[in-house]
Amino acid sequence: MTTPCPIIAISGGVGGAKLARGLASVVGASDLMVVANVGDDFEHLGLAICPDIDSLLYGLSERNDEARGWGRRDESWNFMAALAELNGSEAWFNLGDRDLAVHLERTRRLRAGESLSTITSDFARAFGIAARVLPVTDDRLSTIVVTDRGEMPFQQYFVAERCEPKVCDFRFEGAKEARVTPDVAESLRRGAGAIVVCPSNPFISVDPILAVPEFLNLLRGSAAPIVAVSPIVGGMALKGPAAKMLIERGRECSALGIARHYQGLIDGIVIDQVDEYLAEPIRALGIAVSVEATIMKTDSDKTNLARRTLAFSENIRQGKKAE
Amino acid sequence: MTTPCPIIAISGGVGGAKLARGLASVVGASDLMVVANVGDDFEHLGLAICPDIDSLLYGLSERNDEARGWGRRDESWNFMAALAELNGSEAWFNLGDRDLAVHLERTRRLRAGESLSTITSDFARAFGIAARVLPVTDDRLSTIVVTDRGEMPFQQYFVAERCEPKVCDFRFEGAKEARVTPDVAESLRRGAGAIVVCPSNPFISVDPILAVPEFLNLLRGSAAPIVAVSPIVGGMALKGPAAKMLIERGRECSALGIARHYQGLIDGIVIDQVDEYLAEPIRALGIAVSVEATIMKTDSDKTNLARRTLAFSENIRQGKKAE
Repeated sequence: MTTPCPIIAISGGVGGAKLARGLASVVGASDLMVVANVGDDFEHLGLAICPDIDSLLYGLSERNDEARGWGRRDESWNFMAALAELNGSEAWFNLGDRDLAVHLERTRRLRAGESLSTITSDFARAFGIAARVLPVTDDRLSTIVVTDRGEMPFQQYFVAERCEPKVCDFRFEGAKEARVTPDVAESLRRGAGAIVVCPSNPFISVDPILAVPEFLNLLRGSAAPIVAVSPIVGGMALKGPAAKMLIERGRECSALGIARHYQGLIDGIVIDQVDEYLAEPIRALGIAVSVEATIMKTDSDKTNLARRTLAFSENIRQGKKAE
Repeated sequence: MTTPCPIIAISGGVGGAKLARGLASVVGASDLMVVANVGDDFEHLGLAICPDIDSLLYGLSERNDEARGWGRRDESWNFMAALAELNGSEAWFNLGDRDLAVHLERTRRLRAGESLSTITSDFARAFGIAARVLPVTDDRLSTIVVTDRGEMPFQQYFVAERCEPKVCDFRFEGAKEARVTPDVAESLRRGAGAIVVCPSNPFISVDPILAVPEFLNLLRGSAAPIVAVSPIVGGMALKGPAAKMLIERGRECSALGIARHYQGLIDGIVIDQVDEYLAEPIRALGIAVSVEATIMKTDSDKTNLARRTLAFSENIRQGKKAE
């Protein structure tokens, strides 16, 4: 069960899943462990919903809907239509008919006392995913968005409120007490070859993972280079509210803002070609920079970015050794 | 909430729902209360499934699939397909994508502490059903089939084992302690105009209802005539395992067998024209007989049978008065 995984990717949902898919093709999926955010997880209609884990499972197994940008391909929405007849107020979160199977089966197994990591591993296997996909923790960890309209659980902010309230801060409930999933801890202790922070939202996808003190300590204790891929390209987020959040938190809405956010943790950052002018200011922070085409539309985009990110990481590792 | 309902129908699922629909057209839906079997209810994948209540809700609101004979019309099966990927062994019970909405919303509300009768009433309203549909009890009542292969819960016998094991007996767990749903008890106490036992399976649809002592006492204390419609026509069940069960229980597989089953409870029985030769032997039991076309294919079949059943009941009531 606990074979060491040379490549550890830290990921949120859709954006992270794209790079994870590229990494899986480059290194051989069985050499990849993806550590997923669980801060967005919530209960809805009595179902345990794990949006980032599911995006990873769908993305890594090509079950994702590329055009829509979330959820499963060949999805149908008859459950939602029927639910709206019975309870219109609970229909704010879209649950596709196929997607429901994952939530329902996960909920059943969690209630039976199984851990989220065991269930997620089984689902990955059932979907033919050779990479390991694991939640950072099996314990409860909930992202709370502190806004100008008060505190709210992440999904309320994200889906019901459409990210409209101004963000003042984030809290990660349960993070301090959360234990790292044993296989994740084991892999980090045995020594990873590279640690990649995927181009996910730093505040709501990566920070909840880093908020687990045991995980952060394991990262800091690892000899592997830690390399991030910027989710901000040309001052804009490719998906989701990362840009809005950077601005509202008083940060620079750029790859430099991302580099500053991770300063002290990462050894290097991959930024897009349009942001090449930011390479020098980022290097001035003591962070190595690689300038690449970072927008992933096709499978070969994903593979190329993954390959270059790993090559960059290897260069840093050689440099570290030489020091 | 507790207006008296002149017509009380006792019903299982699909077959009973057909007559209930006819009764609703004849008497005006708001004068009809359908008391539903809950002995088949079970938990599957963590969902509270009530097959007979759902058949009634779908049948009374024309949401049922006439051609398939069960479930919802315009149904899709993408949830099932996706579930089978994750857990093939739990896919033995068919759950349509639209049907799921009912199970999931009911489960959510039951867990929140609401009663099955409140939830069922709300669902009926949401579906535009003016008749009242109520479980005989809000308490747990489970039909256990005693077979030559051992005891098994009803759904295991019915779906997983395809009714193959030989039936030795039935047990209705919880029936003795079950309290009758308050609105049902209230309506019976205030005085019903007629009590109709729908053409449902006597052993597994009607007997579980009658197994609730409080309900049986209320029936016996009611001045209203009790009239059954035979679910056996020409020695065959129109649907389901009623004929097989009659034979295995050593009963006559005919409308006469049905009359004997209900002897002591019913005042009259409606039998099909093909069974007219059984009218005399049934009358010899002290049960009035009405011979009608009882096969309900179209809406007008349902309405006609309902009208004639109620006229028959009214005749019995007049006769009772005259006695």
